[in-house]
Amino acid sequence: MNVIKAIELVGSSSEGFEKAVENAINEAKKTLRNIRRVEVSNFEVLMENDEIKMYQAKVKLYFTVERD
Amino acid sequence: MNVIKAIELVGSSSEGFEKAVENAINEAKKTLRNIRRVEVSNFEVLMENDEIKMYQAKVKLYFTVERD
Amino acid sequence: MNVIKAIELVGSSSEGFEKAVENAINEAKKTLRNIRRVEVSNFEVLMENDEIKMYQAKVKLYFTVERD
Amino acid sequence: MNVIKAIELVGSSSEGFEKAVENAINEAKKTLRNIRRVEVSNFEVLMENDEIKMYQAKVKLYFTVERD
Amino acid sequence: MNVIKAIELVGSSSEGFEKAVENAINEAKKTLRNIRRVEVSNFEVLMENDEIKMYQAKVKLYFTVERD
Amino acid sequence: MNVIKAIELVGSSSEGFEKAVENAINEAKKTLRNIRRVEVSNFEVLMENDEIKMYQAKVKLYFTVERD
Amino acid sequence: MNVIKAIELVGSSSEGFEKAVENAINEAKKTLRNIRRVEVSNFEVLMENDEIKMYQAKVKLYFTVERD
Amino acid sequence: MNVIKAIELVGSSSEGFEKAVENAINEAKKTLRNIRRVEVSNFEVLMENDEIKMYQAKVKLYFTVERD
Amino acid sequence: MNVIKAIELVGSSSEGFEKAVENAINEAKKTLRNIRRVEVSNFEVLMENDEIKMYQAKVKLYFTVERD
Amino acid sequence: MNVIKAIELVGSSSEGFEKAVENAINEAKKTLRNIRRVEVSNFEVLMENDEIKMYQAKVKLYFTVERD
Amino acid sequence: MNVIKAIELVGSSSEGFEKAVENAINEAKKTLRNIRRVEVSNFEVLMENDEIKMYQAKVKLYFTVERD
Amino acid sequence: MNVIKAIELVGSSSEGFEKAVENAINEAKKTLRNIRRVEVSNFEVLMENDEIKMYQAKVKLYFTVERD
Repeated sequence: MNVIKAIELVGSSSEGFEKAVENAINEAKKTLRNIRRVEVSNFEVLMENDEIKMYQAKVKLYFTVERD
Repeated sequence: MNVIKAIELVGSSSEGFEKAVENAINEAKKTLRNIRRVEVSNFEVLMENDEIKMYQAKVKLYFTVERD
Repeated sequence: MNVIKAIELVGSSSEGFEKAVENAINEAKKTLRNIRRVEVSNFEVLMENDEIKMYQAKVKLYFTVERD
Repeated sequence: MNVIKAIELVGSSSEGFEKAVENAINEAKKTLRNIRRVEVSNFEVLMENDEIKMYQAKVKLYFTVERD
Repeated sequence: MNVIKAIELVGSSSEGFEKAVENAINEAKKTLRNIRRVEVSNFEVLMENDEIKMYQAKVKLYFTVERD
Repeated sequence: MNVIKAIELVGSSSEGFEKAVENAINEAKKTLRNIRRVEVSNFEVLMENDEIKMYQAKVKLYFTVERD
Repeated sequence: MNVIKAIELVGSSSEGFEKAVENAINEAKKTLRNIRRVEVSNFEVLMENDEIKMYQAKVKLYFTVERD
Repeated sequence: MNVIKAIELVGSSSEGFEKAVENAINEAKKTLRNIRRVEVSNFEVLMENDEIKMYQAKVKLYFTVERD
Repeated sequence: MNVIKAIELVGSSSEGFEKAVENAINEAKKTLRNIRRVEVSNFEVLMENDEIKMYQAKVKLYFTVERD
Repeated sequence: MNVIKAIELVGSSSEGFEKAVENAINEAKKTLRNIRRVEVSNFEVLMENDEIKMYQAKVKLYFTVERD
Repeated sequence: MNVIKAIELVGSSSEGFEKAVENAINEAKKTLRNIRRVEVSNFEVLMENDEIKMYQAKVKLYFTVERD
Repeated sequence: MNVIKAIELVGSSSEGFEKAVENAINEAKKTLRNIRRVEVSNFEVLMENDEIKMYQAKVKLYFTVERD
């Protein structure tokens, strides 16, 4: 039987919120397979010298854990 | 007198979160008039074969109910 | 010693959610310095004549208060 | 068998919060029967020219759905 | 030393929400002294035959416990 | 394009919580097709003469709205 | 006049969640009369030696306080 | 461009909850213009000698910030 | 069978938050036995003449109710 | 010294909610020891062709991390 | 008439959480009088080179606004 | 590119809440590098024989995941 596991990541991008979500997914895909659903928990903007430096998205990824 | 009614929809788009919100609004407009405000409840990404398949936005639409 | 203060703004844009966040930041920068972090509290869409009129983002801005 | 359905309305009144709740109920009664319980989700005041224009109450109405 | 205790009550009134809060307080005063603060948790309306039967207020009462 | 709609129901059963969820689903199926997901919002027990009378489950049903 | 009081209990059972709710109700009935409604706040499972030892249900009981 | 700012106040009244909201608005109007919307966050009652001393309403005021 | 009961207290101390929690526990122990777990709900500071007068901790105490 | 770690899983079962929780626990036990407590975050039902296909339980497992 | 205003600050200290709250209060006292109550919203620890660099407390301060 | 990962731990200490947070951090440092921020989710006290046995802090640790 399969079980779904959830992990929490914060993705970043200088381009925008959607790209920050995608970066989190792309990072996760380096070590995980079978990601099925990604929930956005919140969006933030990091500032530096009063300019936007980074868009951040906290996401929860749900992936199927396979057992042989 | 008018009253405002709220309904909850989930819009989808392969292009991004904003387009998912707009798709929910466009679908709602096929049967509803006088939509006044749309709150985003949450954003999700659906994956298939570890690729992004769909951006989803759960939204609450507020529209005025007209009575004659 | 420095302390961080938080204020809440609602930014608007006819273009999209990200631009609404940026407009809130740009307005804040007219009177505040040292903004460090901006949390998105929620996104809304305002409708007029059943067309999207404005994207809105409620944001919390955190900035360092400097004392001499 | 009966099931209870919930819908969400926003009632308005220039007189006060209680009247706003009652107006939402009265509007609902034009199309629904068997309302059993009404929860207040939140209260708001709309302003115009810096005067109170309208008291608003977001309510959730629970009503029994009858089937023959 | 004194400690504050919190209890939760639901007060009812056929007249309105404020009266429902007051009825909860009046009932509490029959067995408690030194009530200091009352928080309203939520408001509800009970319907019967599609008419408002009762306004209800769920409240949390904080009172000082005296020890000799 | 398809959109997903959410509605909120309260199902009841004298047998238990799971049966209360199933009853809500069965009632919904009398008028809705294409239910995809059902979230349980909360569970309650109604008492009468200090005996359990009914198990209740508040659920949110998500179903696909088809347009021709 | 009657007022409703709410108390919070955690019921336990080695058999399952529903039985844990019922055990909380049965315990409450030893000292309380006129319980009207029981809300489930959350469900937990206690483990011992990596086996399920106990199902637990945190519940809020609402009962009518009678005064002569 | 205009931005909306939110501030949080607690208004008080010996007469009732609605009056407490209005007092918060009236106080705000002494220094702010262009208040557009007022959300009620919560209602409380302050007691003194076991009598109701003050109704309190915590409100969030949204007002347009004008720039020349 | 045993059941666990939860009560809510607010403990105070002029020394700090931890001491405020301990004072709530010590007060509870004057009338209760078998306290098993204490959750901190929130921390507050009361001010007087712009000086810290009291640290307060709202806590939920869980204790086993014994029946013979 | 020991520390407790929490992970989040979604267990599934075609039989019911309790079995879904147990399946999540059984899956976790294949790689983890010393599970102490399991909190249920939410229950869902997945539908297929308008029939119940799977009961799902999102759970948080707390287990002791042992270090030598 | 007096009204209470709430502002949100984040206080920092290298010593601990309580000191972080006190630093927020001390900073606020440089420009505000009549602070009456301070709620702790959350506690965080900032790390640098894997060592604790700063304890942070987000607090909401309530102070009376005096008008002549 | 870097991504931030969040994990949840419960730290314990017989000395106090701050020490419980530090113990969770110290445990985490045995296997993780680059911890950047630690949020306190909640504080609890475990009792044994009606005496305080352990202070517990549930914390969420955010650390940068490095990839070569």
